[in-house]
Amino acid sequence: MRISLAQLNYHIGNFESNLRLMKNAISEAKAQEADLICFSELATCGYPPRDFLEFRDFIKRSMEVVNELCKMSKDIAVVVGAPTVNPEINGKDLYNSVFFLAEGKVRHIAHKALLPNYDIFDEYRYFEPAEEFSLVEFKGKKIALTICEDIWNLGNNNPMYTVCPLDELRSGHPDFILNLSASPFSYAHSAERLHTIRANVQQYGIPMFYVNCFGGQTDILFDGGSVVMSPDGNCYDEMPFFEPCIRTYDLQEVIRGGQSREQAKEKTELIYRALVMGIRDYFSKLGFTKAILGLSGGIDSALTAVLAVDALGPENVMGLLMPSPHSSEGSVTDARDLAENLEMKYEIIPIEQGIQAYGSMLEPWFQGLNTDITEENIQARIRGMLLMAFSNKFKHILLNTTNKSEMAVGYGTLYGDLCGGLAVLADVYKTEVYELARWVNRNEIRIPLNSISKAPSAELRPGQKDSDSLPEYHLLDPVLYQYIEQRKGPEEIIAMGHERNLVLRSLKMVNQAEFKRHQAAPVLRISSKAFGQGRRMPIEGRYLI
Amino acid sequence: MRISLAQLNYHIGNFESNLRLMKNAISEAKAQEADLICFSELATCGYPPRDFLEFRDFIKRSMEVVNELCKMSKDIAVVVGAPTVNPEINGKDLYNSVFFLAEGKVRHIAHKALLPNYDIFDEYRYFEPAEEFSLVEFKGKKIALTICEDIWNLGNNNPMYTVCPLDELRSGHPDFILNLSASPFSYAHSAERLHTIRANVQQYGIPMFYVNCFGGQTDILFDGGSVVMSPDGNCYDEMPFFEPCIRTYDLQEVIRGGQSREQAKEKTELIYRALVMGIRDYFSKLGFTKAILGLSGGIDSALTAVLAVDALGPENVMGLLMPSPHSSEGSVTDARDLAENLEMKYEIIPIEQGIQAYGSMLEPWFQGLNTDITEENIQARIRGMLLMAFSNKFKHILLNTTNKSEMAVGYGTLYGDLCGGLAVLADVYKTEVYELARWVNRNEIRIPLNSISKAPSAELRPGQKDSDSLPEYHLLDPVLYQYIEQRKGPEEIIAMGHERNLVLRSLKMVNQAEFKRHQAAPVLRISSKAFGQGRRMPIEGRYLI
Repeated sequence: MRISLAQLNYHIGNFESNLRLMKNAISEAKAQEADLICFSELATCGYPPRDFLEFRDFIKRSMEVVNELCKMSKDIAVVVGAPTVNPEINGKDLYNSVFFLAEGKVRHIAHKALLPNYDIFDEYRYFEPAEEFSLVEFKGKKIALTICEDIWNLGNNNPMYTVCPLDELRSGHPDFILNLSASPFSYAHSAERLHTIRANVQQYGIPMFYVNCFGGQTDILFDGGSVVMSPDGNCYDEMPFFEPCIRTYDLQEVIRGGQSREQAKEKTELIYRALVMGIRDYFSKLGFTKAILGLSGGIDSALTAVLAVDALGPENVMGLLMPSPHSSEGSVTDARDLAENLEMKYEIIPIEQGIQAYGSMLEPWFQGLNTDITEENIQARIRGMLLMAFSNKFKHILLNTTNKSEMAVGYGTLYGDLCGGLAVLADVYKTEVYELARWVNRNEIRIPLNSISKAPSAELRPGQKDSDSLPEYHLLDPVLYQYIEQRKGPEEIIAMGHERNLVLRSLKMVNQAEFKRHQAAPVLRISSKAFGQGRRMPIEGRYLI
Repeated sequence: MRISLAQLNYHIGNFESNLRLMKNAISEAKAQEADLICFSELATCGYPPRDFLEFRDFIKRSMEVVNELCKMSKDIAVVVGAPTVNPEINGKDLYNSVFFLAEGKVRHIAHKALLPNYDIFDEYRYFEPAEEFSLVEFKGKKIALTICEDIWNLGNNNPMYTVCPLDELRSGHPDFILNLSASPFSYAHSAERLHTIRANVQQYGIPMFYVNCFGGQTDILFDGGSVVMSPDGNCYDEMPFFEPCIRTYDLQEVIRGGQSREQAKEKTELIYRALVMGIRDYFSKLGFTKAILGLSGGIDSALTAVLAVDALGPENVMGLLMPSPHSSEGSVTDARDLAENLEMKYEIIPIEQGIQAYGSMLEPWFQGLNTDITEENIQARIRGMLLMAFSNKFKHILLNTTNKSEMAVGYGTLYGDLCGGLAVLADVYKTEVYELARWVNRNEIRIPLNSISKAPSAELRPGQKDSDSLPEYHLLDPVLYQYIEQRKGPEEIIAMGHERNLVLRSLKMVNQAEFKRHQAAPVLRISSKAFGQGRRMPIEGRYLI
């Protein structure tokens, strides 16, 4: 039997485009002489469809895609993920299902049993878990159909679940496992995935064909990296990350094994590629082509510009340089050097007229009062407004350049430098921003060295440095990582050797900044715990404050 | 036996303040000669604690509150909701539990079985459902302990669940039901609650003591309205809405029944009181006292001002009138009349200098181009910046005045009139804003009649009316209600008799505006489906667009 895996980039709710992609893939699989083609989880409607699932009309349109695929299953079996209606009165309205279509008919439907409901996942909001398990037979082979999380409770050792679907399917003696996934990227996840697939294959002694989607869905990024694993535990094939791929495998050859082809998994490169894809797909799926961003001469905006240029082309990226009287000379020269290195457009708009206008409008109430954060915020907000004016006039999307360290501690101005349609770096700690900057400069200087070497500064008052208000980033970032990614409490972090006052001060800053993050742009997720829908915190709580 | 119910306002994560509230309530219950006092669901830590639950330190601090309450349980039994650690390796880490504390000891712990995971609820993210059920005996009476949702699957007729906890408990012959709730307000919910409690009491033939919390938790509002229901189906008592209440009831008298005391449930008044409480608690829990808002002379800002004045006192509310060359004369005179009616402070800041400064800064790029939405947005954003400047300088929280109809269709400027720390009216449709305005004017004219009677306008270009860009609100709002609250698809709404083009255009506008709502302030929730955490939609989806 020849089995084709289709690693594609779906668009949520865009049923026509998803069907077209799958039709083309079926043609390609037939050309590769496949007996069966397998698409990924909820491929008909895209993943995650979120509350669109609550609309019957949405489910109906998804079923129309299944019906179209069914018609195409005469010469080739088609395996595809789609939501289905739970016919029982009790339990949630839907299942997260996989259709096995063959000879123009629905041969089998299986449901997902393990429904992730943590971090960015809300599957228990919509779906009832499967309670029955059975194999599907095709061309004399028995196939164990599983969906994504179903293979993540091997040996029942995942504390979140009490069922192991493959243990239930084992008694029927399956010949191989098909897994349809929509497994989001984070920089350590592709290695974990391979580990889990291998553990399953070794446990059950049969091969697994694992197909993932790829592409950006606003903040959630999918990396592809679909896997074919032989019973000997060798990775027979691992598809490339962040790109479409349709490949066909001979089952007997996969069972024979002895071939090992894994993709490189270097953290910084993976993050770079994920962010570029995230920008590209956000624009293409919203129907935009052009980006704008503020260039401050600093490393965050420089790195964001590189990523935007690599995603959209230099001709589609515009930088605004908006010096104020507090700006260093380097803020303009470094930004200009960057724009010239990248061959992108840039314009210079001094903001002093704006500062004077606000000063004058506010003078009757502010005169005689001390200058404070208010005046710093006004500068940041004038810049935000100028960027938005360009965005509105010329149909750019504004890219936000805030990094994760700043976003964590609230070092940014709401409606100022926190403006933007997409926060490109807000899941990348400042120390990781430096790693990425050095990586993009590995062959040629794209980011001016001065932007990398100078001390970070918001340049909103004379001589200001980030370190006036914040701990040094090499001390701050590890504390933030323990609190945010590892969910350690203050005493646990202190016990690791971090200085008590630094820890308490940092955690307090994070919790106090929740109101700012609530209004932030969607954040491209590259870690296991990004700000946004995967981290849900009360705004007016008083914990650790 | 004398049973005391304590309807209190908890603060999420503020363990000291929650413990203090409960200690005082225990003293009061003892003064009322109670044998037992019952607090509400997750009272130790406040509801909803959201991802704070993922921190062991948070659970430990909550348990310290339970231990303190335990010490106080020598002369009175204390029943309180708190998260507990699941000792099993399999299943989620926590239970949503109730402690029965008596004679200084933990007498019993019961867990919640039905975990809401829809709308604003994420309980399956954190908690394992109870699988065992048993009664607790106290002073010769057998008590069925239940938590909130546990009573909402009577007769197993709620399609979301497959268990009915009281059916499990019934065989032990309980004498009465205690229910600890954290049941959020929406304008129709208090009637539904009473209906459900009555149905349970009639099904099992025993009384129910139902205790709810009250208070605002950012966007989520709790109305209290705790209930004691006699076996005859009469509401023996219903506590007042939106205020603290500690009352003690004699079990025998409740069983005897024959007394019916229900609170009035008039929609407009309930919404008014919920919004006032929501503002008040948002400020007090964040440690702020003063509000600022823009006064346009229109009905939305006028109603928001009334609510703010009633929540915080007129001395704590400041209005900014920010006329532009496009403002009607009424925009200033109506706003001034309002401020004088409410005896609140106001200041007038014309924004023309700001408009000129942006015009001048942008002239090199914008000259010769047509005026469009860009220039309208600049005016809205100058106003947002001036409000934020006052907010920063004088420690106000900026109140947002957008209504639900505008928020739905995206009729508002990001970083302009969408600025603010709290969106007061963004769950109130425009047609409901009119109802509320008439209601607050029922005894005296507080909102100038002109603000109510004139045609809605953003006044961002000469002669502009909302109806230039939007359907009339009396046509639009019913369509939005069907789509948002009732989750009906386009064909279903058209089949109800709404005009096809209006429906398709309205739904498209809603879905296209998702990116704006993603960056909006938290919305005080008064309906069964508010924008915010209870409605989770993809930003770059293409459904109905």
